[in-house]
Amino acid sequence: MKIAILFGAKSYEHEISIVSAIAMQKVLKQELLYIFCDKDRNFYHIPVDKLEASCITKGKYKKFDQLFIRRGGFYKKSLFSEKRIDFTILLNLVHGGDGEDGKLASILEFYDIDFIGPRVEASVISYNKLFTKMYAKELGIKVLEYQLISKDNRDIEIPFPFIVKPLRLGSSIGVTIVENRDEIDYALDVAFEFDNEVLIEPFIKGVKEYNLAGIYSDKFELSIIEEPKKEKFLDFNKKYMDFSRTKQILKADISEELEEKIKESFKKIYNTLFRGALIRCDFFEIDEEIYLNEINPIPGSMANYLFETFSSTLNSLYRHLPKPREIVIDYKYLHSIQSAKGK
Amino acid sequence: MKIAILFGAKSYEHEISIVSAIAMQKVLKQELLYIFCDKDRNFYHIPVDKLEASCITKGKYKKFDQLFIRRGGFYKKSLFSEKRIDFTILLNLVHGGDGEDGKLASILEFYDIDFIGPRVEASVISYNKLFTKMYAKELGIKVLEYQLISKDNRDIEIPFPFIVKPLRLGSSIGVTIVENRDEIDYALDVAFEFDNEVLIEPFIKGVKEYNLAGIYSDKFELSIIEEPKKEKFLDFNKKYMDFSRTKQILKADISEELEEKIKESFKKIYNTLFRGALIRCDFFEIDEEIYLNEINPIPGSMANYLFETFSSTLNSLYRHLPKPREIVIDYKYLHSIQSAKGK
Repeated sequence: MKIAILFGAKSYEHEISIVSAIAMQKVLKQELLYIFCDKDRNFYHIPVDKLEASCITKGKYKKFDQLFIRRGGFYKKSLFSEKRIDFTILLNLVHGGDGEDGKLASILEFYDIDFIGPRVEASVISYNKLFTKMYAKELGIKVLEYQLISKDNRDIEIPFPFIVKPLRLGSSIGVTIVENRDEIDYALDVAFEFDNEVLIEPFIKGVKEYNLAGIYSDKFELSIIEEPKKEKFLDFNKKYMDFSRTKQILKADISEELEEKIKESFKKIYNTLFRGALIRCDFFEIDEEIYLNEINPIPGSMANYLFETFSSTLNSLYRHLPKPREIVIDYKYLHSIQSAKGK
Repeated sequence: MKIAILFGAKSYEHEISIVSAIAMQKVLKQELLYIFCDKDRNFYHIPVDKLEASCITKGKYKKFDQLFIRRGGFYKKSLFSEKRIDFTILLNLVHGGDGEDGKLASILEFYDIDFIGPRVEASVISYNKLFTKMYAKELGIKVLEYQLISKDNRDIEIPFPFIVKPLRLGSSIGVTIVENRDEIDYALDVAFEFDNEVLIEPFIKGVKEYNLAGIYSDKFELSIIEEPKKEKFLDFNKKYMDFSRTKQILKADISEELEEKIKESFKKIYNTLFRGALIRCDFFEIDEEIYLNEINPIPGSMANYLFETFSSTLNSLYRHLPKPREIVIDYKYLHSIQSAKGK
C-alpha cells in the first residue's frame, strides 16, 4: 500500500500543512509519496527522502517533476506521453483554504481519484463556522451562542469577554480574545484581514475542553479523548507546533458517563456527512453538558497522537471510502423530443 | 463581450442542461461560445452554429476540439503548444450534479477562471435540501416541516399526503406525491434510486407558489414574480420542457405587500452567500406567510423569461463578481523554525 500525501496549496495554513506532511513520515508505516501543491497551485512530486522544510521554502521543489491532474490520477510528462504516478490512495493533508473548503475534494471527485478526506459537503459545513453551528443545532447538539458581524455592522451584543474569529479559518489564525471595549477595534481589524465575515462567541475562562478523533469504516473507530493543556488559548505560533505532534498522549481522566456523551456527539456529527474522512471534534463541557466547538475535517498531523494504531486506522478508512453514484446518461429525453420533431 | 456557456457534465440533469444551453442562443445578445462537458467529464469546444441536440446525442461533438483546464482558462492542444480559447466570462449552466453541487465551482475557482454561477458554499447549501432548510431557518425564513429518512429508517411521521424527494436533486427527478399507505414503498424506492437520503414534506394541495429570480451587482436587480401555472405538480417531463422557455411572462397579480415580503425574503437568502450567481427562489404562501421551497442557483434556462432585459442583467452580474482573497505565503514560520534550528 502506497499513500500519496497531498499538501500545501493556496491557503493561510499552507505552512502548517507542510509541517503536518513532514510529521506523517514518523507515524505512517505505509510507503509514502508526496504531492506538493505550491502557492500558484501547481503540483510537484517530491521524493520522500527529499522532503524537508528547506526544499519548499527555498523553491527547490521546482526541480522535481511537475504533475497534472487527469482522470484517475496525477500524471507526469515524459518525452512523448504522460505517465500516471502510482499510489493506492491519496491523503488530503491540505489544511484551510483549498483543502478544507471543498475545492480539492471537488477536484479529486471530479477526476475520480480515490482519497481520504472530507467530501465537498462535509468540507463546506465544517469550514464555515456558521454552517457548523447550523448543522450541530439541527442534530440537537449544543453550541455556544454567537453573533455574525460584517464590516458594515460592528454592533456586538455578546458581553465581555468574547472571542473574535474569522468565519472561515482554522488554526486560530486571526482569532483574538476581547476583554474590554478598548480591544474591540484591533480584534475586528485582525479578523477582517482574513474574512469579510466575523463570528463572535462568549469566551468562557477555564472551560473544560475535550478533543476526540475518529473514522467510520464498517463501524466507528474512535481515538482516545484528550483534554488539551492550554494557555489562555492557543495562538497560531503554539498551535503551529501542534501540527508536528507525533507522540501519543494519555487519555483524559474523565467519568465514563462524560466519555459516553462525547462519543455519542461525535458519532452524530460524523454520520454520514464525514464518511471518507478522519476528523477531530473539539468539544466544551459546561454544567455537564457537551457543546461542539469545532470540527476539524483534516486535523493537524491527522491527530495521529490520539490513536493507538494510527496506520491501521487509515487502512480501515481506505477500505471503506464512499463511492460516487453511477449515473446513466442515455439521452432518452432528447431522443424522444427529436423523434417527436421528426429529426 | 463573449460568454462561454459550460453545460452537460456527469449529472442526472445532463440532458436539461443541453436544453438550457440551446435556449441561451435565443435570449442572449452577447457573442457565445459553447463548452460541453460530456458524461466522461471531458470538455469540448462546440461552435455556436453546430450546437443542436443531435450533435450531442449522436456523439458528433467528439469531432470538435477537446479542451483542457489550466490556470486562467480552457486550452486546446495545437501541434507544439496549447492555445487558450478566448472568452470574457464563463456561464456555469450545468444543472444538478457537478454544476450545482460545488464541483465545477471549485474547479473554476481553483484555476482562476472568472465565472457566473454559485460559489462552492452557495452550491452546497442550495443543492442539499436539508442544508437549505437549516440556512433558511437561520435567517428567520419559514420552511415547511420535514423529515429526513434513510434506507434503514423508513418510519414516516408526517401525515398524508406528503412529498418524497431525493435529498440532493433538482428538476423534480425522483419526486413523488404520496396520498396513502399503499404508495409509500414505491415512492421511497424511486427516491432512493437517486440518493441515500430522502426528504419528506407535507403536500399542501393548491398552495400558492411564487418564483422570483435576481442578482446582486452593486444593488439588487430582481425579476418579475411569477405564479407558475401547475398541474398537481410538475413532473420531470413537464419541467424538462420548462428548461427551454424563452418567452417572457406576465407578472403575478399579487398585492404590493406580498410582493414586498417575497422580495425581502429573496434578498436575505441571496446576500451574501449567492454573490456571483443569478438564482431563482421558489416560495410558498400559506396564511399570508412566505415559506422558502427551494433555491435554484442555476435555474432552468437561467430564468431568462422572468427578466425584461436578461442580457444586460448578466452583464451587470459579470461586472460585480466576487473576487477571491489574495493570500501571501512567505514562509515566515518555517524560516523562523529553520533559523532557530541553525539550518
